[in-house]
Amino acid sequence: MILTVTANAALDITYGIPELRVHASHRVRQVWQRAGGKGINLASAAAAMGCEVVVAGCAGGQTGTQIEHDLDRRGLPRHLSPLRGESRRTVTIVDESGDATVFNEPGALQDTGVVDALVTDVTHLLDSRPPRVLALCGSLPTGMDGHCYRRIVEIAESRGIPVVLDATGAPLTDALPARPDVVKPNRSELATTTGQQTMSDGVASLRDAGARTVVVSDGAAGIHLFPEDGGHLHAFLDHTLSGNPTGAGDAAAAAVCAGIDGGWSSADLLRAAIAWSAAAVLQPTAGEVDPADVERLLASVHLKEFS
Amino acid sequence: MILTVTANAALDITYGIPELRVHASHRVRQVWQRAGGKGINLASAAAAMGCEVVVAGCAGGQTGTQIEHDLDRRGLPRHLSPLRGESRRTVTIVDESGDATVFNEPGALQDTGVVDALVTDVTHLLDSRPPRVLALCGSLPTGMDGHCYRRIVEIAESRGIPVVLDATGAPLTDALPARPDVVKPNRSELATTTGQQTMSDGVASLRDAGARTVVVSDGAAGIHLFPEDGGHLHAFLDHTLSGNPTGAGDAAAAAVCAGIDGGWSSADLLRAAIAWSAAAVLQPTAGEVDPADVERLLASVHLKEFS
Repeated sequence: MILTVTANAALDITYGIPELRVHASHRVRQVWQRAGGKGINLASAAAAMGCEVVVAGCAGGQTGTQIEHDLDRRGLPRHLSPLRGESRRTVTIVDESGDATVFNEPGALQDTGVVDALVTDVTHLLDSRPPRVLALCGSLPTGMDGHCYRRIVEIAESRGIPVVLDATGAPLTDALPARPDVVKPNRSELATTTGQQTMSDGVASLRDAGARTVVVSDGAAGIHLFPEDGGHLHAFLDHTLSGNPTGAGDAAAAAVCAGIDGGWSSADLLRAAIAWSAAAVLQPTAGEVDPADVERLLASVHLKEFS
Repeated sequence: MILTVTANAALDITYGIPELRVHASHRVRQVWQRAGGKGINLASAAAAMGCEVVVAGCAGGQTGTQIEHDLDRRGLPRHLSPLRGESRRTVTIVDESGDATVFNEPGALQDTGVVDALVTDVTHLLDSRPPRVLALCGSLPTGMDGHCYRRIVEIAESRGIPVVLDATGAPLTDALPARPDVVKPNRSELATTTGQQTMSDGVASLRDAGARTVVVSDGAAGIHLFPEDGGHLHAFLDHTLSGNPTGAGDAAAAAVCAGIDGGWSSADLLRAAIAWSAAAVLQPTAGEVDPADVERLLASVHLKEFS
């Protein structure tokens, strides 16, 4: 079972309109609403690929209830901890060009009590029904410091449960001293977080701080995997895809978790990460993957190994 | 007591951002969230001016719960009837220019069962605690036809309860044969609804269809009142105001209701309508009025009477 933690889960609202005009009034044609956040997308993609998953994280207020209802509707088992105030929402306006204009709410300010409750609840889940992999995903609510993820990594590692950390900035660097098994920034997040220009310098910087295996996604250029024991694998698709890249990184993280859960080789895990994330691009909504697309796309993955 | 009915109540979400850029991602700085809709704004303004009010209408789903919570927070007594699916939301983006970009959700499709429930619930309110004035306000949810308001007007008139109808298009014209005491379109709504170019032709057209007293608001140019027994009064402010005109028409309707409740003359009612709506312009949020502003503005109202 894969347990994902989304500390900053959101309600993602998407409006379809013909054209966005600044300072005009718009009649919305279509409304979509889903529970969102990287760990929820990861769990959703993994579930679509047949993995057993549980969703943890934080939710609060009426918006939190809407997040919970959507997880129930989608059949994703959940154990969400309380948040102070309302969960944040995102509003995305998609016009007929297919491009998106996004508004991200800041979310309510949290305190240490909320962190303590999340750590306690996740610890209880790790003990009562130990997952094969724990994924810590995405940003932290305003006022929650990065030690939240570090504490959870320490607790999971002490129980021998492998941790995948898919975060950027302080939530990533603050947790590195606890030595998570895998960190998965994308290329621009790696550069921003470490301040290093090249990928190898960025990876070295994360390693110095405590990282073990590092997976770096790079959009259409593929995904790089730097195993803890040395080396460098690079996989990519032999053709470009058009579609919706939102959630593609989360599908890659889902494949990483599934690979750890299944004891796959680094090469197989990386091939799956390419195929799952490419399959996610073909779906209109984040967190969805069609296993038939994954099957077909696996044949188009190229893999290079560097020593 | 003033009873208002808002069949198409909404949750109004407002985001403050520095600048709206099409196809960009925005970090929202401020989030405001309120129960909205013309009848709720009317009741809120009337309550601020010391009137006793009750809010009726329809609300559904989690969004309906959010509307109810906000009414409770604001101390506005409510008796909302169930809606199929979720209540609609509006999202308004206000940037530093002060101008607004608005997205209106269509709302869920309703059926006759929802209309019947609303009519039954409002009838029960009219019988159990008869208001001095009933205000029917705003648009109808998708799938609810205008006979909803007509049925309620008939029931109120049969009990001798005066009705103010603040609606436009079909919800207005469909209800006119039931002869509501006052209809209150704004000037452009009057033209759109009747297809008439001049105000007097528009008023005559409404009268032919069953209207009695007609009140036409015309923005900064003031408000016209055409009493059922003939004549024409025009009131306006002797200076222009800058501010937020959203909800100004609802504050004018609140003054009309308060005037009927208090048995004011047409001239006093019209002066109050100008002062209340001008005071609403000075507030950042619809449904708010400062009685001190009203007191001060009343001295600046000019009134003309035509025979």
